[in-house]
Amino acid sequence: MKVEPKTLPGFMELLPKDQILFNQYMDIIKEVYEQYGFLPIDTPNIELSEILLAKAGGETEKQIYRFKKGDNDLALRFDLTVPTAKFVAMYYNDIKFPFKRYQIGRVYRGEKPQQGRFREFYQTDIDIIGDGELSIINDAEIQSIMYVLFKKMNIGKFTIHMNNRKVLNGYMSYLELSDKSVEILRIIDKINKIGIQEVENEIIELGIDKDKASSILKFITINGNCKSVIDQLKKLQIDNEMFIEGVNELETVAKYMNAFNVDEGYYCIDLKISRGLDYYTGTVFEAYLDDYEDFPSLFGGGRYENLAQNYTDRKLPGVGVGMGITRLFYALQKFGIIKAEKKSIAKVLVMCMNDEYEKCIYISNKLIEKNIPTQIYYEDKKIKAKFKYVDNLEIPYVILIGEDEIKNNVYTLRDMKTGEQISLNEDALIEKLV
Amino acid sequence: MKVEPKTLPGFMELLPKDQILFNQYMDIIKEVYEQYGFLPIDTPNIELSEILLAKAGGETEKQIYRFKKGDNDLALRFDLTVPTAKFVAMYYNDIKFPFKRYQIGRVYRGEKPQQGRFREFYQTDIDIIGDGELSIINDAEIQSIMYVLFKKMNIGKFTIHMNNRKVLNGYMSYLELSDKSVEILRIIDKINKIGIQEVENEIIELGIDKDKASSILKFITINGNCKSVIDQLKKLQIDNEMFIEGVNELETVAKYMNAFNVDEGYYCIDLKISRGLDYYTGTVFEAYLDDYEDFPSLFGGGRYENLAQNYTDRKLPGVGVGMGITRLFYALQKFGIIKAEKKSIAKVLVMCMNDEYEKCIYISNKLIEKNIPTQIYYEDKKIKAKFKYVDNLEIPYVILIGEDEIKNNVYTLRDMKTGEQISLNEDALIEKLV
Repeated sequence: MKVEPKTLPGFMELLPKDQILFNQYMDIIKEVYEQYGFLPIDTPNIELSEILLAKAGGETEKQIYRFKKGDNDLALRFDLTVPTAKFVAMYYNDIKFPFKRYQIGRVYRGEKPQQGRFREFYQTDIDIIGDGELSIINDAEIQSIMYVLFKKMNIGKFTIHMNNRKVLNGYMSYLELSDKSVEILRIIDKINKIGIQEVENEIIELGIDKDKASSILKFITINGNCKSVIDQLKKLQIDNEMFIEGVNELETVAKYMNAFNVDEGYYCIDLKISRGLDYYTGTVFEAYLDDYEDFPSLFGGGRYENLAQNYTDRKLPGVGVGMGITRLFYALQKFGIIKAEKKSIAKVLVMCMNDEYEKCIYISNKLIEKNIPTQIYYEDKKIKAKFKYVDNLEIPYVILIGEDEIKNNVYTLRDMKTGEQISLNEDALIEKLV
Repeated sequence: MKVEPKTLPGFMELLPKDQILFNQYMDIIKEVYEQYGFLPIDTPNIELSEILLAKAGGETEKQIYRFKKGDNDLALRFDLTVPTAKFVAMYYNDIKFPFKRYQIGRVYRGEKPQQGRFREFYQTDIDIIGDGELSIINDAEIQSIMYVLFKKMNIGKFTIHMNNRKVLNGYMSYLELSDKSVEILRIIDKINKIGIQEVENEIIELGIDKDKASSILKFITINGNCKSVIDQLKKLQIDNEMFIEGVNELETVAKYMNAFNVDEGYYCIDLKISRGLDYYTGTVFEAYLDDYEDFPSLFGGGRYENLAQNYTDRKLPGVGVGMGITRLFYALQKFGIIKAEKKSIAKVLVMCMNDEYEKCIYISNKLIEKNIPTQIYYEDKKIKAKFKYVDNLEIPYVILIGEDEIKNNVYTLRDMKTGEQISLNEDALIEKLV
């Protein structure tokens, strides 16, 4: 009896041509992270549930894949932050701080599968973690790295929206709304979905008077270039220590973004950004493609005071950024921003016109030594079928070897795009293909 | 309350220095596979249990990580072969055959954790899958690729032991022992563990008479170079079609191993090799390091007639090879064959001697543009602490930038190995570090 072959909904599985493209982006990501000195770690997909759920609650507990194996209560990681916190607490003595680390791996969230949402997806994070303290310049560096990365990805104009939680919380404190700050920020977070008017309504529904609600709305919609926004914030002359610290941090980060050569058109201060996660305490940022309104955020991150507080008493502040590669890749293809262009990795296919494969193998070895990806076709098919294979995989070149080629010690090279066929000796062939 | 940070036994988790080394091997593996035109696929870690257990029984069912999520009966993959079979059956119409594919990913087996055995480990497979038929030359190619790969890994002298199931089964049939063939091969498979004498004893215990047992022992211990073994097999003049086919296949594979430039010292015909998996039907092979008796096999594989028979009626024969990278890496470190040599990815650390980071950032940007991994140290520490960080991470170079350097528009470069410090302008600095 046959079992029907199928893949679970919410699990991405790509055909090779798309996988090639996906892997190209993975390679760019890794390359950029390593150029800035980030070190790789690779924690397990499975951890003890008590580790993963040390802090979590609500949605996480509902979505997590949790199961027993023997006596162990296990779960699949739902992000890379919690395993990293465990890692840093566990190997504290072996780690040198500031610890720059990157991780790329699959994470699991059993949410309702819907377009663009995945239950298994590749996540990638970079974090710079300090022991006790960490310079604010790191907050600029980490955003500049993402700028460099997304410029390299070449997927169009984007903007990093940055803010500082201290500015928001300081302002709420100044308005004597600290006790409602979390709820207010949660409402503001929805502004792109529900609009300004509805944000004001919901804030008023919290029992906040109209004047304050209107001040908040005016405050979060302050705009202009970085210098102008910082000037406007300073002019408010808000006498609150946290607010002033936050504005200074924003100013410093903006100054260093500039030093990092981040084009001013690619970032802005956006006081509406607060990031849902309540562990962020300073800088926060999110990035969006400019020309696609419905496109999900490209990446997001920020500064936190205490990475590993569930596992250790040590204060380990850091700044990090995460992105969901699977979701990003899905959206990039869906919006037509990227398209698979290579169906094969082989640059050349060697085709034997008689049954003497030795010369085919000989030249294939030579080409591979020169790092030219090469495939030999061994199957006993008609020449038409062989060329159909080459056409289907869009392999750029074919080397034909038959009796004449063996006799004259040459190779016939066919350029599949132009159809041109030339006869070359070994050296000329290699030179042509390198 | 704090949760004690820990990692599950049987789950490899490496410090960055070891992870850097691990990733280097992963990169070599991928690079070699791609040079031979293998296409990447990346199936999910989770599949429906009915897919993964379509054939399995015994050990697999016991070891598999299986759990419910909602109404779904799910499991973590325990190898990459079953998901590949599913993939090929499912996307048959989109795949071009012969399908050369590689996959690298984590697989899960809940066996007793013991030294060198892992519950979560990276597996990598390459397979060449035909539609209906597949040339025997592929059996040589796939072994030659592993030869090239392990030569590149540079971990010492190894030998590929190859055999053909048709030779073994044909010989058993000739001895009229076909009905006991599976049990006999299972006993032979243990020969390196239990020794020749015990193999003979166990075969006799199956109720096989002493003469036949002794013939089997004599047969499986035939040795010499490939040509000699094939000559000895032919001289036996065994009148069994399957046996003759097997010997011819062995001869053809050996001939092409030679064409592929596989050094004759690196492979042999070993009639004791049968591979446990009963889906192999022709060529089988395993490889071992020569100088380490207890070292586990490096890789193993073979030819099968029917990859996806649990999911489709189509006949999809193939030849493949798999290896457990995690176990291999563990053993290579344990036996002292490889050792982490890089604690950092950064080649240079930029150190600021005052509080003006602009010049540090400027030169860091320039170096990164030239693909020189560069890290800036931003923390407010004493110079001694900064150099301790560099020493701990063994970063090869430090660039020092203070007032003098800014005034004279130069950089002070310190070679951490020699302690030598030189003053360079921008161009000379870049040239020195490229």
